[in-house]
Amino acid sequence: MISYEHQAQYYETDQMGIIHHSNYIRWMESARIWWMTQLGVDYGNMEKEGIVSPVLEVFCQYKSMVRFGDTVLITPRIEKYNGIKLELSYKITDKVSGEVKTIGMSKHCFLDRNGKPVSLKKAYPVYDEAFKKGMETVE
Amino acid sequence: MISYEHQAQYYETDQMGIIHHSNYIRWMESARIWWMTQLGVDYGNMEKEGIVSPVLEVFCQYKSMVRFGDTVLITPRIEKYNGIKLELSYKITDKVSGEVKTIGMSKHCFLDRNGKPVSLKKAYPVYDEAFKKGMETVE
Amino acid sequence: MISYEHQAQYYETDQMGIIHHSNYIRWMESARIWWMTQLGVDYGNMEKEGIVSPVLEVFCQYKSMVRFGDTVLITPRIEKYNGIKLELSYKITDKVSGEVKTIGMSKHCFLDRNGKPVSLKKAYPVYDEAFKKGMETVE
Amino acid sequence: MISYEHQAQYYETDQMGIIHHSNYIRWMESARIWWMTQLGVDYGNMEKEGIVSPVLEVFCQYKSMVRFGDTVLITPRIEKYNGIKLELSYKITDKVSGEVKTIGMSKHCFLDRNGKPVSLKKAYPVYDEAFKKGMETVE
Repeated sequence: MISYEHQAQYYETDQMGIIHHSNYIRWMESARIWWMTQLGVDYGNMEKEGIVSPVLEVFCQYKSMVRFGDTVLITPRIEKYNGIKLELSYKITDKVSGEVKTIGMSKHCFLDRNGKPVSLKKAYPVYDEAFKKGMETVE
Repeated sequence: MISYEHQAQYYETDQMGIIHHSNYIRWMESARIWWMTQLGVDYGNMEKEGIVSPVLEVFCQYKSMVRFGDTVLITPRIEKYNGIKLELSYKITDKVSGEVKTIGMSKHCFLDRNGKPVSLKKAYPVYDEAFKKGMETVE
Repeated sequence: MISYEHQAQYYETDQMGIIHHSNYIRWMESARIWWMTQLGVDYGNMEKEGIVSPVLEVFCQYKSMVRFGDTVLITPRIEKYNGIKLELSYKITDKVSGEVKTIGMSKHCFLDRNGKPVSLKKAYPVYDEAFKKGMETVE
Repeated sequence: MISYEHQAQYYETDQMGIIHHSNYIRWMESARIWWMTQLGVDYGNMEKEGIVSPVLEVFCQYKSMVRFGDTVLITPRIEKYNGIKLELSYKITDKVSGEVKTIGMSKHCFLDRNGKPVSLKKAYPVYDEAFKKGMETVE
């Protein structure tokens, strides 16, 4: 299983005494970019080559609160990929207890410098292969 | 129509040259709390009285990018409320063009100081009435 | 007096029950950019013309805590400007009580697309005039 | 040397294509809390025991830009501690090149649940000893 580790920071808390819900969306991004790197897709280089991958949709279901100092594991998983669009799911669990804290989802497309949709399949086969490999590596 | 106004800030941008997607979740919160105040529910006081209203689910669909300096209107709407749970939808439009930028959703419950679910209907009828009124005021 | 108004948001709080100190740095930026606009310097356009104005130094002294729901006035003031560098001070006061909550400072330079220092005085006299006017308008 | 490691995240960038300057203030907090833990001061427990340590002043001087994906080392150092107030300096360096990116400073006091200043020296000698030890461990 492929997991990105994050320790909940003080600046991520709110006055409810828990991690503010907007931060999980950021953690999902960290895990996504980290995992793309594992698959051979360096997102920073991808942008330098003129492709951006904006977020089309994002969803989060909060099951249990994460608090300051807790360490969580964020496990991304490619649910759908067709060369044009990408959909991932995320499971955020407590590192110590294994408890599922949050589940999430994000959808993405790929755009060129002019904001036009790019088919990775056609234009960037190396990235396309990497994402396909990512789908298969899920146990 | 009830709308909360926000001007997109420089610190909300990312290196894609757009507003980072996590900020819309924060704008939805601002609009939600602002609107509750319009309905007579001061969320700050609510917390002082021992009720918190954590987020159970959040969803955002990004239709068009918001950029630094743009002014958006965030229109919250109570979709469901039954005294125990609350669900809102949000429409984020460009103030100048009226273009829909993002639509969103959030679900909430109410908890007491011990983290136990509270029925506003039973325990806080004034707040209950306010949320009901909020459902009706939608044109 | 020239003041930018901001209402402290829930997502800006931390578990100490106050506004997290990093947000004041962001409010200073909002007030700075807002004020530049008043002076005739649209920072967004400035960037489109190829000039960026990164922060060289930032300082904040916290005198009294700002809490969720409080409205503050951020008053920027140009302390030094010589066509190459810019220094501002900030006073953050409670809108209702007038109490000084925080004082701050920021220093900036101007860089072109290649990251080389730009003299606004020489290259962009219109902006140069605006900043000079800004220094004089302080009562 | 005692250093906290952080990889610059995408959500920390701004449209200048660099890490937004407010984030360094947050990184300093992460490094400070992490280091306190190394010294035997668990800040989360400290708060549970009724002591908070708000920020009185913060300063940052930006020498070189940090970009998305860069890994930085944040080295905190206790500059002053007298049982009542605490002052730290921070050096943020690039992990690969060793280049100094930013230097910073923060000042703190200790308050009890009623917001009154606490002398750690008198009331919490264990924490007092830890901070004194922290001053000595600097090479």
